[in-house]
Amino acid sequence: MVQEANEGPLSGVVVVDLSSVIVGPACSLALADHGAEVIKIEPPSGDLMRKLGGGAKHPGMTGKFMNFNRNKKSVCIDLKKTAGQEMLYTILAKADVFISNMRTEALAQLGLDFVTLQKLNPQLIYTQVLAFGKGGEYFNRPAYDTVIQSASGVAGTFEKSSGEPRFVPLVMTDHITGMIAAQAIGFALYRRTRTKKGELIEIPMFETMSAFVLREHLGNMTFKPAIGPIGDARILDKNNRPVKTQDGYISISPNTNEQAFAFFDLISRPELKGDPRFCSVEARTLHSVDYYALRSGSLLGKTSAQWIDLFEQRDIPCMRYNSLENLVEDPHLQQVGFLRETVHPSEGPILEMGLTNHYSGGVRQQFTPAPRLGEHTLSVLAEHGYGPEEIEIALQNQVIFSEAKGV
Amino acid sequence: MVQEANEGPLSGVVVVDLSSVIVGPACSLALADHGAEVIKIEPPSGDLMRKLGGGAKHPGMTGKFMNFNRNKKSVCIDLKKTAGQEMLYTILAKADVFISNMRTEALAQLGLDFVTLQKLNPQLIYTQVLAFGKGGEYFNRPAYDTVIQSASGVAGTFEKSSGEPRFVPLVMTDHITGMIAAQAIGFALYRRTRTKKGELIEIPMFETMSAFVLREHLGNMTFKPAIGPIGDARILDKNNRPVKTQDGYISISPNTNEQAFAFFDLISRPELKGDPRFCSVEARTLHSVDYYALRSGSLLGKTSAQWIDLFEQRDIPCMRYNSLENLVEDPHLQQVGFLRETVHPSEGPILEMGLTNHYSGGVRQQFTPAPRLGEHTLSVLAEHGYGPEEIEIALQNQVIFSEAKGV
Repeated sequence: MVQEANEGPLSGVVVVDLSSVIVGPACSLALADHGAEVIKIEPPSGDLMRKLGGGAKHPGMTGKFMNFNRNKKSVCIDLKKTAGQEMLYTILAKADVFISNMRTEALAQLGLDFVTLQKLNPQLIYTQVLAFGKGGEYFNRPAYDTVIQSASGVAGTFEKSSGEPRFVPLVMTDHITGMIAAQAIGFALYRRTRTKKGELIEIPMFETMSAFVLREHLGNMTFKPAIGPIGDARILDKNNRPVKTQDGYISISPNTNEQAFAFFDLISRPELKGDPRFCSVEARTLHSVDYYALRSGSLLGKTSAQWIDLFEQRDIPCMRYNSLENLVEDPHLQQVGFLRETVHPSEGPILEMGLTNHYSGGVRQQFTPAPRLGEHTLSVLAEHGYGPEEIEIALQNQVIFSEAKGV
Repeated sequence: MVQEANEGPLSGVVVVDLSSVIVGPACSLALADHGAEVIKIEPPSGDLMRKLGGGAKHPGMTGKFMNFNRNKKSVCIDLKKTAGQEMLYTILAKADVFISNMRTEALAQLGLDFVTLQKLNPQLIYTQVLAFGKGGEYFNRPAYDTVIQSASGVAGTFEKSSGEPRFVPLVMTDHITGMIAAQAIGFALYRRTRTKKGELIEIPMFETMSAFVLREHLGNMTFKPAIGPIGDARILDKNNRPVKTQDGYISISPNTNEQAFAFFDLISRPELKGDPRFCSVEARTLHSVDYYALRSGSLLGKTSAQWIDLFEQRDIPCMRYNSLENLVEDPHLQQVGFLRETVHPSEGPILEMGLTNHYSGGVRQQFTPAPRLGEHTLSVLAEHGYGPEEIEIALQNQVIFSEAKGV
């Protein structure tokens, strides 16, 4: 099923995606954007994100849903009906990858356990995102992003930096685990070219995110006995944040002596060049708490634009701070064509995000809009050998659902 | 160069990694943990993270460096010397993947631009992590994690949720971009099995992270004209954070009616079941600000353990909050064997993180300790055909450096 004008690295790969909300859809979006054909299997109620994704012009088409599900096909099947399961088996028999974030027992109840699907299609790469891995006492507990942020140390980094745990205002652990699941699928596809066999991949969110946090912060506790407290003190410093200016915020990183001394001149504190806490890279690293504190109150006298101008003249690393609103208008993003206006067939004019990675071997050329629920039910089943009569009966029996007729 | 007892999906893949600090090493760590042979090329001064990674028992072996660089080999070459460049060419001629986070012009000065390396080895997958992509005005500006957090909207999510921008106390944009770079390399390796050709991959951090943030938060502004303010209000709610108890914090997610009503009973507010703001899923979604506010002050009367016990009895999703110290002692992580004690040959007893993803097709079995600077210079050059005399001359001329002799 290689499509023309679709030249991403995963062109020709067929993915059956039974996942919903964020972690699975983020994974299959990465595959779709890289050229895979992603067939999203939805229950009659649809992916929960169709409703929970904030504002929408039409029911089921929230902005958040659309941004995680473009370049996919939607096939709506009631898998609680045996006839629905059989249709899914037909699709899975020709697929390369299966993705789910359902619990193991729920998958088994639907006849979608690894052993069954491996018999059906020995080449299938069966990918299961779990909240918590097998063998530990949290296995089978429900997964919510906040549950994982709370348990995996993400919230804990804020307790260290500001005295109080908090969540990152992103569905960060879902989203990162989704990226890592797509990574795992790429690796398994590569292995399959040699072994000619599929396999089972399990990605537990809690373990994945704990590793993410601890790689950065285990630090002194890597050693037994520990040689100091846990955590990277520079990253956890309470003043490691955007610096306030007269009219907003910027970020600055004066690291070398040249940069630091130019910075001291610009904030009218030239005497600090001789301060034993700040006179060398080593001294500033050792006294990073003081160095961060010094920065935090130093830029109130000028606007962000004035400071950036001055810092750039002196080659001091600095950067504008973008609010979410500013980000959409960012000049660099506009120059690289990252956000482009396009027209969704049912939702009208929308902003579409371009691909961010460049591959000289080719990228996906043709984008398809985020699908309405069941938009591709009929076409995908027809491609898989179902005749008009079979499809009609399945529709009548509410085994499948389609919005294609209304288009 | 397939190694025995190394059965990860990337077994046999040879990676030459010229990167340093976090973004590149995070990428090559993912490849190494999945079975690739990663040859880390270091300058005589070593990867900066050897020094900046916090506490160490011996110079250059900080905990953070070790946790991002296990399962890799260290080859120390002075690439400013022509003889050093030639040695690197010899290694690259047999490699599958090249990774760098240097600027394009710096790579060209070292004779390591894509065109040169493609001629040397047409199968090479040449991967460059950039701060900002080509074609936009920020191109060639220096990349620091905080610069990207400031510009890409990560800091901006905090302004929405709490009135003030801040950084996540993780080197989050480096770390995520590194994961996505490893994903891209996996996809390119898969494509190469068909095309038999290498390619150039560019991963710009700013664009990558802007897409990460906007996929979640573009929301209402996806539509033209916008149908509401930017940002997912539920995620950005100021009370979307771990909930304080008598002795700490926990996270809770009472979502269904059953869960919410049980929660109201347990906090002795049964009358809320009839409150029009909280009586249904739709009502609680519409009044999420009130619902979060209600939770935040409701758990001060009991300890975390008492609440978790009560919530679990009533099937209300909840989870312990782990400080960084607690995380290392977490019972589930211990049960799955995630953190295991091992002995580093020069650094003594250490905690080593296990693999978090499970592959039925096999995972890397044998782990190698984080290398000392130049630990594998001699063995890797010998494997690539250099004789003892050539190596001796290169050592004397300070083209290469080795710590292997002292072992």
